[in-house]
Amino acid sequence: MSYLQDKFLLTTKTAAQLYFDYAKDMPIFDYHCHLSEQQILANEPCTDLCELWLGGDHYKWRLMRNYGIDEAYITGDKSPKERFAAFCKVLGTAYGNPIYHWSQLELKSFFACDLEINEKNADAILEHCNRYMAEHRVTPQSLIESSGVKVLCTTNEVFDDLTVFDEIAKKDYAFRVFPAFRADRIMNIEASNYLTFLGKLEALTHTITSLGELESALEQRLTEFIKRGTCASDIALEKVYVIPSFEEADRVLRSALCGNSVSTSDAEIFKGYLTYFLMKLYAKHGIATELHIGAMRNNNSRMFGKLGPDTGYDSISDTNSITELSRLLDRLDSEGMLPKTIIFNLNPKMNPEIMTLIGCFQGSEAKGKIQFGAAWWFLDNKVGMERHLEDLTATGHIATFVGMLTDSRSLLSYPRHQYFRRILCSYLGAMMERGEMTADVESVGSVVQDICFRNALEYFNV
Amino acid sequence: MSYLQDKFLLTTKTAAQLYFDYAKDMPIFDYHCHLSEQQILANEPCTDLCELWLGGDHYKWRLMRNYGIDEAYITGDKSPKERFAAFCKVLGTAYGNPIYHWSQLELKSFFACDLEINEKNADAILEHCNRYMAEHRVTPQSLIESSGVKVLCTTNEVFDDLTVFDEIAKKDYAFRVFPAFRADRIMNIEASNYLTFLGKLEALTHTITSLGELESALEQRLTEFIKRGTCASDIALEKVYVIPSFEEADRVLRSALCGNSVSTSDAEIFKGYLTYFLMKLYAKHGIATELHIGAMRNNNSRMFGKLGPDTGYDSISDTNSITELSRLLDRLDSEGMLPKTIIFNLNPKMNPEIMTLIGCFQGSEAKGKIQFGAAWWFLDNKVGMERHLEDLTATGHIATFVGMLTDSRSLLSYPRHQYFRRILCSYLGAMMERGEMTADVESVGSVVQDICFRNALEYFNV
Amino acid sequence: MSYLQDKFLLTTKTAAQLYFDYAKDMPIFDYHCHLSEQQILANEPCTDLCELWLGGDHYKWRLMRNYGIDEAYITGDKSPKERFAAFCKVLGTAYGNPIYHWSQLELKSFFACDLEINEKNADAILEHCNRYMAEHRVTPQSLIESSGVKVLCTTNEVFDDLTVFDEIAKKDYAFRVFPAFRADRIMNIEASNYLTFLGKLEALTHTITSLGELESALEQRLTEFIKRGTCASDIALEKVYVIPSFEEADRVLRSALCGNSVSTSDAEIFKGYLTYFLMKLYAKHGIATELHIGAMRNNNSRMFGKLGPDTGYDSISDTNSITELSRLLDRLDSEGMLPKTIIFNLNPKMNPEIMTLIGCFQGSEAKGKIQFGAAWWFLDNKVGMERHLEDLTATGHIATFVGMLTDSRSLLSYPRHQYFRRILCSYLGAMMERGEMTADVESVGSVVQDICFRNALEYFNV
Repeated sequence: MSYLQDKFLLTTKTAAQLYFDYAKDMPIFDYHCHLSEQQILANEPCTDLCELWLGGDHYKWRLMRNYGIDEAYITGDKSPKERFAAFCKVLGTAYGNPIYHWSQLELKSFFACDLEINEKNADAILEHCNRYMAEHRVTPQSLIESSGVKVLCTTNEVFDDLTVFDEIAKKDYAFRVFPAFRADRIMNIEASNYLTFLGKLEALTHTITSLGELESALEQRLTEFIKRGTCASDIALEKVYVIPSFEEADRVLRSALCGNSVSTSDAEIFKGYLTYFLMKLYAKHGIATELHIGAMRNNNSRMFGKLGPDTGYDSISDTNSITELSRLLDRLDSEGMLPKTIIFNLNPKMNPEIMTLIGCFQGSEAKGKIQFGAAWWFLDNKVGMERHLEDLTATGHIATFVGMLTDSRSLLSYPRHQYFRRILCSYLGAMMERGEMTADVESVGSVVQDICFRNALEYFNV
Repeated sequence: MSYLQDKFLLTTKTAAQLYFDYAKDMPIFDYHCHLSEQQILANEPCTDLCELWLGGDHYKWRLMRNYGIDEAYITGDKSPKERFAAFCKVLGTAYGNPIYHWSQLELKSFFACDLEINEKNADAILEHCNRYMAEHRVTPQSLIESSGVKVLCTTNEVFDDLTVFDEIAKKDYAFRVFPAFRADRIMNIEASNYLTFLGKLEALTHTITSLGELESALEQRLTEFIKRGTCASDIALEKVYVIPSFEEADRVLRSALCGNSVSTSDAEIFKGYLTYFLMKLYAKHGIATELHIGAMRNNNSRMFGKLGPDTGYDSISDTNSITELSRLLDRLDSEGMLPKTIIFNLNPKMNPEIMTLIGCFQGSEAKGKIQFGAAWWFLDNKVGMERHLEDLTATGHIATFVGMLTDSRSLLSYPRHQYFRRILCSYLGAMMERGEMTADVESVGSVVQDICFRNALEYFNV
Repeated sequence: MSYLQDKFLLTTKTAAQLYFDYAKDMPIFDYHCHLSEQQILANEPCTDLCELWLGGDHYKWRLMRNYGIDEAYITGDKSPKERFAAFCKVLGTAYGNPIYHWSQLELKSFFACDLEINEKNADAILEHCNRYMAEHRVTPQSLIESSGVKVLCTTNEVFDDLTVFDEIAKKDYAFRVFPAFRADRIMNIEASNYLTFLGKLEALTHTITSLGELESALEQRLTEFIKRGTCASDIALEKVYVIPSFEEADRVLRSALCGNSVSTSDAEIFKGYLTYFLMKLYAKHGIATELHIGAMRNNNSRMFGKLGPDTGYDSISDTNSITELSRLLDRLDSEGMLPKTIIFNLNPKMNPEIMTLIGCFQGSEAKGKIQFGAAWWFLDNKVGMERHLEDLTATGHIATFVGMLTDSRSLLSYPRHQYFRRILCSYLGAMMERGEMTADVESVGSVVQDICFRNALEYFNV
């Protein structure tokens, strides 16, 4: 039997009451994830836990590397059984790490397996879960549906094929799938394969020889997205850039179109302009912007050469850019074109700066128009969530929070919502029992439900 | 009945003992606030809670904006009753926010009202409190006196009229009112109305055509302030600047006097010099410097145009300047002209840098000569105070702390001292009950009383 | 009787079980300290607690200065009894400060003295302990041995005399003493006495007229160190620098050798290169690098003039250099020359950046090849250690941690290991009792023992 009990993370009676009576059965609005719409549509049955866990999850890879496991057991040619055993060995003593909790929750939630994950139990766990999948039909759709998901936004590049969403829309799934609009590949003008991506966009729209034509192509694609239900967009930046003039950005684009390499400063000019342009576009079309700030990517060039991006070699940037963020929001606000925006910050030292800045740009178009996004990526763990709730409470309004998302490539990641909800209920329950807030459980329970689901539903206006 | 109990924030028996037996009845030395000396002297009775709460408190305005309340209900033309109802609705679910706690404490402390603040109770609260004010004589003076205030320092510009303080000095109030000296308007040379402010200073002193004349004018005014009991001064900076030469600063001033616009770098030269000059002046006259570092002001230019400064559109700066702060303190110390200084830091990420730096510049002129100021502005909340106490304890000496101030424009803000004292007693009480410090309650209680009142009295040497 | 109980810092039953059954009796591997090998060899009996405590410990001096004690009682000419009384007065109310805890632990551990430290008990404590030392033979060796130390690494400059280690190696102490290799004086090329230090290195190796010759001299000395058991090296930097070319660094060195003064930017070039070179050298010879980042030294020039360096006038730097650290690790990793590295960070705001960066450069040569070093210097206190454990847990793997070191000049500092172990057991015990991790005490106890001793033994490969 594992350490997971019903009261996992629920430190008080009131916390348990809030969780079981209010939070537990609320649906999930997963407004940002990296699941594959093709995989959902294809719905091939899952058969192997090793593949599900270690096939592509760089969170788990990193944890194994931190322990000193040889890459052969991580992304190399060792057998699934050997790789799984190595992972269980590592996890067995990774006390308190989010993977330690999530993985145990996943076993229980999806495979009725309550074996504690450690080296000794590795074979038994793999056997149990693979047998479970052989005996039950476990598919992408069943995993999503059984998790209570009602809406799910995948992350799609501007040139992605949207017909899959048309196919999905014809089905009668218990959940809806919408594409979130992401133009990162069009923004990262310094990339060596930039023109390839631009070509894909051209193929779906028109020839692009200038910034004006790029802008209209992007808007054309956004319109196509919105026809498929798009309510959210996504911009990822290491830091926020100064907004240059249209002319400056146009010059950079034209130079890149000629095949010239793009300097770092020119790339920043282009990204600075495009961030501004895209947010105006999102405001015009009434969709929300999710701004992800602060990842320093691909630190290890040796492993980048071997495995490519998104394989566990990113980290947290230290670059300060609160002045630029202030100017960006102010410019958009001044022009009446500031969209609903959720700011996800990866460096917790910046939480107070960002929390207090967004308080300067609220509006009555939405409850919590500018949101301080849930604890993201490296911060998506117990202490990260608790600090997020503390900072949100101290300088913002907790009841406006649109809550949790998965931001995950893994079909098994939905228990992270359970994880968040337990922490949320524990946080509020403790304040109630200490007499620091109302004792009216019903009213607090209603706020909990808002944060679990209803706020997101209202905010994204689906 | 609201959630406020006697043991509010007192998490252990020892905490309650420390609070009720030692802290609760200590007087208040409010060494930095923004109350109006005219309002105190005039002493017009208060009649309307909506005006008291929402008339000018940008903390509350921000909270309403965070929720998505329309500006018409905040600074607009909605009726007091409508505005009050909107505020109560917002506050009802602002769990854990300091306004949530302070407002409830204010109702209880000043109006014997224990209704929980929420949408449902809005009318009843407004009616109760306004009736209370009609039945009892509630005035600025009664609010200050009933709070146990013994000394109160208002914040005054160098050219402010000081005769009000002469008037007050003739009265036999239970508390004393002194002006704190602030030269911010003389320092902010880049402001469009700078020459107007300089003209006001000239009118009270002499013609200013050079930096030398400015210096003597400032000293002349400080002398006038000190005649009215001034024991503290105040400097607000987004960051600490390099100290330039007299000649450089003189050049910038002369150029500004000619009506030239002042560049950002020239403004920094001038501010860098004036900070240095003023602190030397304060050292010479034996008064304390309160250095407020880290506010990024007026982020929202649209709302600045509508409402002006200090209306809820400021945030926390991310600018690093610990090297400049080190150089400033070192220069003054080397010249034997380092005044008692309290450093208020708005960005909590900088707490450890500042805490450890001030440890390098202590002196035997005062217990805790260089102080790490209480959790300020956006940090003036439970978690902010707890982190402040933790950082102070870990790298400083808690018993030297001069404690809490209100820094407030609101006559109702004195319960913040109660709030701080409860958190302080809770912090120490928990350490005592965990066996991490002496069990001698009397000795700890005496330190608590020092922090509540006596340290400030001794430090400011009134 | 002091507040110290058996369960000091052990907040749960499980914490106590982990501490008493697993942690308490583990040996100590002190992989970085500033003890004097000569003092250990000489083994002169200790006679005076005032000298032991206040003779050279700048932590205690700072605390006294923070309180406002006159320098005459700190480094001045007051009598030992007066200085000791002043210290006890200050300590009596320094609740929660690490010195408050450490000093009380030291009295109990080494002198069987359980008097609470305060002004009243000052004379009795001094008398008790000095009598204890007169009656018992208390020596450097007895203090180290009775603390359970098995290995101890002193910190030695490249030109230090190593014959003392040969002498020690011949003895049959219960512990071993190895020199750790430090080239800081050879790196700090801007220092006025740089050529003196270089001369000392030349005297032990060969004439140095170029960077190539410096490199070979350093390697020659490292080889000598390794013959005496060196397993660790140490580099202290205010921030991480860009890696310049060999030619650039050679130019800077040659200029310095000509007696020219070295500009700040040239010094950074030289330090950037030498950091890179030294880490390659350590990789080649299989020893670990300890990188200490973030101290801003000698802030107070007046006191530097009087007392020199390392007297309590350092603080925490705010300089961001995560990009440079990424480049440094990446360059070494790309060349297959990244040594085992422990990064000690002095500014806690940078913990998450560094924690996540090191996750990008792990390897299978060691469990936790790149380590996030224990809470260092100003962070070496309860809250600092707790935050360190939280950050380590959330984004790393706690079971790989090589644990605590003293980093101290004081022979009495070994109870800091007890302090750390109690906090570690409390941290894990609380998670166990809350049901957030396995209930298998034996397995957790084994991890605790790894962190206390075995991980370091394995990591440093003695």
